Amino acid sequence: MEEQEGSLPHKVDFSGWYNEILWRAEIMDVRYPVKGLYVWFPFGFGIRKRVYAILRELLDRDHEEALFPLLIPEPEFMKEAEHIKGFEDEVYWVTHGGTTPLDVKLALRPTSETAIYPMYALWIRSHVDLPIKVYQVVNTFRYETKHTRPLIRLREITSFKEAHTVHATWDEAKSQVEEAVTRYQEFYNRLNIPVLISKRPDWDKFPGADYTIAVDTIMPDGRTLQIGTVHHLGDHFSKTFNIQYEDAKGDQQYCYQTCYGISERSIAALISMHGDDKGLMLPPEVAPVQVVIVPIIMKKREEEVLQAARLLEKELKNAGYRVKTDNRDLRPGAKYYYWEMKGVPLRLEIGPRDLDNNVVMGVLRSGGKESLPRGEIISEVDRKMTEYISALQEHAKAHIKDHLFIVKEHSALKEIVSKGVVAVHWCGNRECADRLEEISDADILGTEVRTDLIDKSKGNCIICGKPEAVITLVGLSY
Amino acid sequence: MEEQEGSLPHKVDFSGWYNEILWRAEIMDVRYPVKGLYVWFPFGFGIRKRVYAILRELLDRDHEEALFPLLIPEPEFMKEAEHIKGFEDEVYWVTHGGTTPLDVKLALRPTSETAIYPMYALWIRSHVDLPIKVYQVVNTFRYETKHTRPLIRLREITSFKEAHTVHATWDEAKSQVEEAVTRYQEFYNRLNIPVLISKRPDWDKFPGADYTIAVDTIMPDGRTLQIGTVHHLGDHFSKTFNIQYEDAKGDQQYCYQTCYGISERSIAALISMHGDDKGLMLPPEVAPVQVVIVPIIMKKREEEVLQAARLLEKELKNAGYRVKTDNRDLRPGAKYYYWEMKGVPLRLEIGPRDLDNNVVMGVLRSGGKESLPRGEIISEVDRKMTEYISALQEHAKAHIKDHLFIVKEHSALKEIVSKGVVAVHWCGNRECADRLEEISDADILGTEVRTDLIDKSKGNCIICGKPEAVITLVGLSY
Repeated sequence: MEEQEGSLPHKVDFSGWYNEILWRAEIMDVRYPVKGLYVWFPFGFGIRKRVYAILRELLDRDHEEALFPLLIPEPEFMKEAEHIKGFEDEVYWVTHGGTTPLDVKLALRPTSETAIYPMYALWIRSHVDLPIKVYQVVNTFRYETKHTRPLIRLREITSFKEAHTVHATWDEAKSQVEEAVTRYQEFYNRLNIPVLISKRPDWDKFPGADYTIAVDTIMPDGRTLQIGTVHHLGDHFSKTFNIQYEDAKGDQQYCYQTCYGISERSIAALISMHGDDKGLMLPPEVAPVQVVIVPIIMKKREEEVLQAARLLEKELKNAGYRVKTDNRDLRPGAKYYYWEMKGVPLRLEIGPRDLDNNVVMGVLRSGGKESLPRGEIISEVDRKMTEYISALQEHAKAHIKDHLFIVKEHSALKEIVSKGVVAVHWCGNRECADRLEEISDADILGTEVRTDLIDKSKGNCIICGKPEAVITLVGLSY
Repeated sequence: MEEQEGSLPHKVDFSGWYNEILWRAEIMDVRYPVKGLYVWFPFGFGIRKRVYAILRELLDRDHEEALFPLLIPEPEFMKEAEHIKGFEDEVYWVTHGGTTPLDVKLALRPTSETAIYPMYALWIRSHVDLPIKVYQVVNTFRYETKHTRPLIRLREITSFKEAHTVHATWDEAKSQVEEAVTRYQEFYNRLNIPVLISKRPDWDKFPGADYTIAVDTIMPDGRTLQIGTVHHLGDHFSKTFNIQYEDAKGDQQYCYQTCYGISERSIAALISMHGDDKGLMLPPEVAPVQVVIVPIIMKKREEEVLQAARLLEKELKNAGYRVKTDNRDLRPGAKYYYWEMKGVPLRLEIGPRDLDNNVVMGVLRSGGKESLPRGEIISEVDRKMTEYISALQEHAKAHIKDHLFIVKEHSALKEIVSKGVVAVHWCGNRECADRLEEISDADILGTEVRTDLIDKSKGNCIICGKPEAVITLVGLSY
């Protein structure tokens, strides 16, 4: 991938930047011959693998991973009325096996409630079987009629992590919702992605849920991206699928459930939050290559430099770093360009002069060049990585701060919401909400906002002026 | 899971044993309401995860993992004539999105050649792009009309690892086939599953391949299970999908390809090869629990024993073992039964008398009870694990030996093939093959057999008597 192929659009043109970086950094190939389906390049898959390893690590603390079928028979799928309404226009149907029409049509799961819950009805007998906390990482399908976009709006969501829990009481399910929100917060902390957490308005909750807590982030263009949701399902599904347990007194009781999911949108957020005009900027934990070594070859001392690079690579690998030495027959500038595009946190350059001075030149992807003493290279690389992570965090936090506004006058709403997320006071009344969305030409994201970036004290409803109105986020969402 | 639920059938009744162990050991739930689709229980998924981690580790040495879409548009799927013939009766078709009929029908991949190779045509430009070695682990689908069986004959193959390589020459592709066979051999060595490797007869090769090398094992009932295949695809697909490279002289050349796959049949083999009348016997590397600690509680010294168990668990975990202490309120016998069913390699019992004697009682799942000095418990557990692995290996090897027969007289064929795999001399002639399959009422597995368990010198064809005939395996296969 050479510079002459043209360059990455500036990130201020976010849409152009996003589309280009996906292939320039070899994340997704968008040329697959079906709309809304994309191919994970090996490099992109390397990021995905590490991001999902974090998610699994967090869940494996007290969840178990399982795997349920993709195909859901029509009668099961059609059992929960609200759920059907939410998904019926978006479901892909398998109607034929070979040339034979199937007796029972099969849905490609758009989400797995109707695949999993009939099994839960068999698994759960008694209160001692509870709670159940199971998750799976699977491909799910939505027949999207809107504009599709890689990692963001897909027809095959390739990497849906969905957890499904079952509890004895509504309150225990509520605690699990809180627990899941905390876990998701931790996940995005690990990726250095600041999030806004709020309770979706009732008309925007998951079909079949009591309520939905959503995790959003703000993309570079100020629009929000929903990157996680947690649903309290009450006993709606347990009544539909007859999921009961025998309580300590021997009575049959309906269970209470939650479900929560994260998809490859987490990776869209990762790319978008940290990248810059030069390409990706990956957090070290999920970077397929953490350190790239570029030997600066001069004809006379070529073998000596290559030997030093090999030794350096070995030492860093032994210390646990994922390292690549770029020995390709390209000029150093082309190599810098290539690895910067791929978001490698640290570049180490090593040439004859560095050998003489017993140093290695370190260039951090977030900026800054520094000569590092060769003898303490491991602790120096550790230090640079810490510096890099701080830079990512600072930058991401500043981005969210710069795109989060408190608005008191509805005349200012529409203009400001085009720049980012707006916090307003809203009385909770549906008519005020409709008016608010109409004026702003944006959506209410939610209430019960969890962030320390804004003052959450109550105020007068921005529409009707009623006092004691709560802070509500409004934004243009992907 | 209590003893009173009845017991596992003896393994000599293999079919009964297999069906029962799947739920008793919590591997698969077969009650999903669609034929041929099954649910991975968390425990089974824990085995799967570790088995596939080995496979990935072996491939990651020089392959890259990627991910291609599930849905293949009909025109792509229909491009390779032989391939279509091989799969058209088995393909599930998606015909509707929501209530809208799709313009282009979409196949659920039965295998991914037709999804991947159009992308390879875009990825490959020049000889410097070669070789390509990419794999993915995905769900694939076959509309099986035969009797389905969990892990063995499925409509959703949940765990298909398929690798697809591209090379400049036919010979390089041939070398890759050999490399893949070696890698698969290594994989099954790690699982302590002896395999028979042979070249499938021409009429049984992969649709669209030049030739197929297959990996089979012998199940407890003497029938063979194909648990891996490696295909030399020649240039058939590269011509169909126009996968060309520019050679060093600047001329366009068609590429040569291979593909090779392993599915969850690897886990069917794992379960079947090592299990016994009491349940699973898992190799330590893939066992979700490697050591179970059972505290033997006497009222008087309960807290002391529990404390000792906790300490033991901690020590073993620090040494890297996956350990579980079973503190449930059940009598020890019920616990033994439970963990034996789940194939835990080593059980450690710890009671008041063991505390007094400063020992732990070790019971290996393969048999034998031994008092282990508490002070050297880590090295003792290491030693027992080695002993256990040897026992698995010995047992498995003996099983294959006992079920592999050389037959010289065709009158004996049918009877002996009902007991296991038969090696005969066959001249290579199709008519002799047909007669051989007719007499034995079994299938030719293949020639060019790779095993040191039988004498492979040439002889007279068992059908026509022609000399210089080669050893060929014949068996009843799943």
